[in-house]
Amino acid sequence: MRVNGKDYRTVWMEGPVVRTINQPLLPHRFDIVSLPDHRATSEAIRNMTLRGAGAIGAAAGFGMAQVFLEAPPAGQAREAYLAEGYETLRATRPTARDLFYALDRVRAAGETGGAEAAAREARALAEDYVDAGRLIGEHGAPLIADGATVLTHCNAGWLAFVDWGSALAPVYAAHRAGRRVRVVADETRPRCQGARLTAWELAHEGIELRVIADNAAGLLMRRGEIDLVITGADRIAANGDVANKIGTYEKALCARDNGVPFYVAAPASTFDPDCPDGDAIPIERRSGDEVLYATGRDDSGEVARVRVAPDGVEAINYAFDVTPARLVTGFITETGVKEAGGSGVSPLGPK
Amino acid sequence: MRVNGKDYRTVWMEGPVVRTINQPLLPHRFDIVSLPDHRATSEAIRNMTLRGAGAIGAAAGFGMAQVFLEAPPAGQAREAYLAEGYETLRATRPTARDLFYALDRVRAAGETGGAEAAAREARALAEDYVDAGRLIGEHGAPLIADGATVLTHCNAGWLAFVDWGSALAPVYAAHRAGRRVRVVADETRPRCQGARLTAWELAHEGIELRVIADNAAGLLMRRGEIDLVITGADRIAANGDVANKIGTYEKALCARDNGVPFYVAAPASTFDPDCPDGDAIPIERRSGDEVLYATGRDDSGEVARVRVAPDGVEAINYAFDVTPARLVTGFITETGVKEAGGSGVSPLGPK
Repeated sequence: MRVNGKDYRTVWMEGPVVRTINQPLLPHRFDIVSLPDHRATSEAIRNMTLRGAGAIGAAAGFGMAQVFLEAPPAGQAREAYLAEGYETLRATRPTARDLFYALDRVRAAGETGGAEAAAREARALAEDYVDAGRLIGEHGAPLIADGATVLTHCNAGWLAFVDWGSALAPVYAAHRAGRRVRVVADETRPRCQGARLTAWELAHEGIELRVIADNAAGLLMRRGEIDLVITGADRIAANGDVANKIGTYEKALCARDNGVPFYVAAPASTFDPDCPDGDAIPIERRSGDEVLYATGRDDSGEVARVRVAPDGVEAINYAFDVTPARLVTGFITETGVKEAGGSGVSPLGPK
Repeated sequence: MRVNGKDYRTVWMEGPVVRTINQPLLPHRFDIVSLPDHRATSEAIRNMTLRGAGAIGAAAGFGMAQVFLEAPPAGQAREAYLAEGYETLRATRPTARDLFYALDRVRAAGETGGAEAAAREARALAEDYVDAGRLIGEHGAPLIADGATVLTHCNAGWLAFVDWGSALAPVYAAHRAGRRVRVVADETRPRCQGARLTAWELAHEGIELRVIADNAAGLLMRRGEIDLVITGADRIAANGDVANKIGTYEKALCARDNGVPFYVAAPASTFDPDCPDGDAIPIERRSGDEVLYATGRDDSGEVARVRVAPDGVEAINYAFDVTPARLVTGFITETGVKEAGGSGVSPLGPK
């Protein structure tokens, strides 16, 4: 997508170096970070320099290609290096299925064809995410009527993928097709990916946007101000239960109580056929400081944090929750819109 | 309640001056504000120097007493001053029923008995809030089993009343009775009364507390980590629908979906027999800046705000939502615990 008149992707590779937009600084500063080796790439995934199901997947794929590029040429040392690099990347974040999907796909290519094959596969994987986003947009756009207001949670736009995104892809497609579409973005505490990233993306695309506190989604639906909800997903179990950013479950309950359609947009790589249901999805727990502080731009223009809660107080901070399949109207995937609930929802199976 | 070894109330009167704790500075600074006349008291209610159903009611009562103390001795000028003062106080906040209840009660006393009678009635009203809180605590405490975890939203503790509070009164009573009770406090964006005020109150009382992002309540209930929910109320309609801090409705939906009891604690003055249902309750809309910024203590120890969202973005900011009576397990009032749903819930009728 275009930023300051130039086309960008969220993450890409230049030679052995992975480059990505530094998302914690957005929307206040637009900065590109270079990740020279797989350890730097791992750390960028872990500390959320980049985040979002597809962006994590693409970065993990590039990181696995870096592992092959860095590894000793042969023998036991090579095997040990490959195994350690794989595990380092694998340990960064527990919930998003795309991480594991990408690592396994690029490792398989590298084991067969070596470092160059791994790098080619990582690039192909990133292209697959671009194509998936475009197709999710095409399939999802007809759900958005002219003049409709879409509520979304967190950021599942192009910053969460490589381009286009998942939840925002239908919004972009409907907007580019000339339909009037308005977005209401949950700010999405504690890290405020909605107020920071979704707002930044939509403003750059010229789409009308209003931010709300996460608490306000229910009232807006009750007032009839939301026509449909679209969120992304970090992992979708075989029975259709969805792990996504903390708070998604509450929005799905609000939608159900008010008869508002609730769609989850995700590529095939987010569906985990080996995971029977939501209870089997590992839920990441992060530092309580994310809740006890808030981050933004201070009076001097610097990105700074302020402490909201009293000193000595603790916080519980799960990064994701599980929305039961019974609350999901449908899945928007690269092959079409599928009904949720019950087995067989994985639209493509493992690639 | 005790602060730094001294007993405080949230709001009180010394001669013609109303004094109150400056709540926007909490928990970072404990400061008492003097409000010399009814215009200063009105502004303190409007700008949320103090907030919460009972604190608004008590302050409005004191403010109406100030109107009588300030008014010319007799004649048309007096009538005009009383009417204008009443309207100024009445226009401060639209949702909390206690505001209107308190103004009418103190005005009636002043019209009959003059300024001294108005001041006496305002003091009696504040005492009634203290008594109501204590009794709500007594009636609600048996709902909290030893070792239970209570989720609360916003702040309905003593800072929201004059002493004790509504939602937190049963917690205080159970704790003082020697039962182990733990509280999970929604941070309650956008103004974070949970992370700031509920956390500050409970820490001073030595009650175990953890803060969560508002988004996390659903997951915690799904995980079985919440035994019951208690919130306050700003207005309860005749059919049992509850207006309370934005987000309360979402927590009630989470509670219902997980079989967690959901109680609303409020004195009789919060029940509005003239309001048929939730749709008839005026919902206050406040500045979008409350959502676009976050406030806390910066590195230098000052209370400062940071801008979270990009420049140029707008926010929708309703201060309250409506929880339908069907989602409320019961009302905890000064006369006992009442079932919700249906007519006749007003436990005492107008006082």
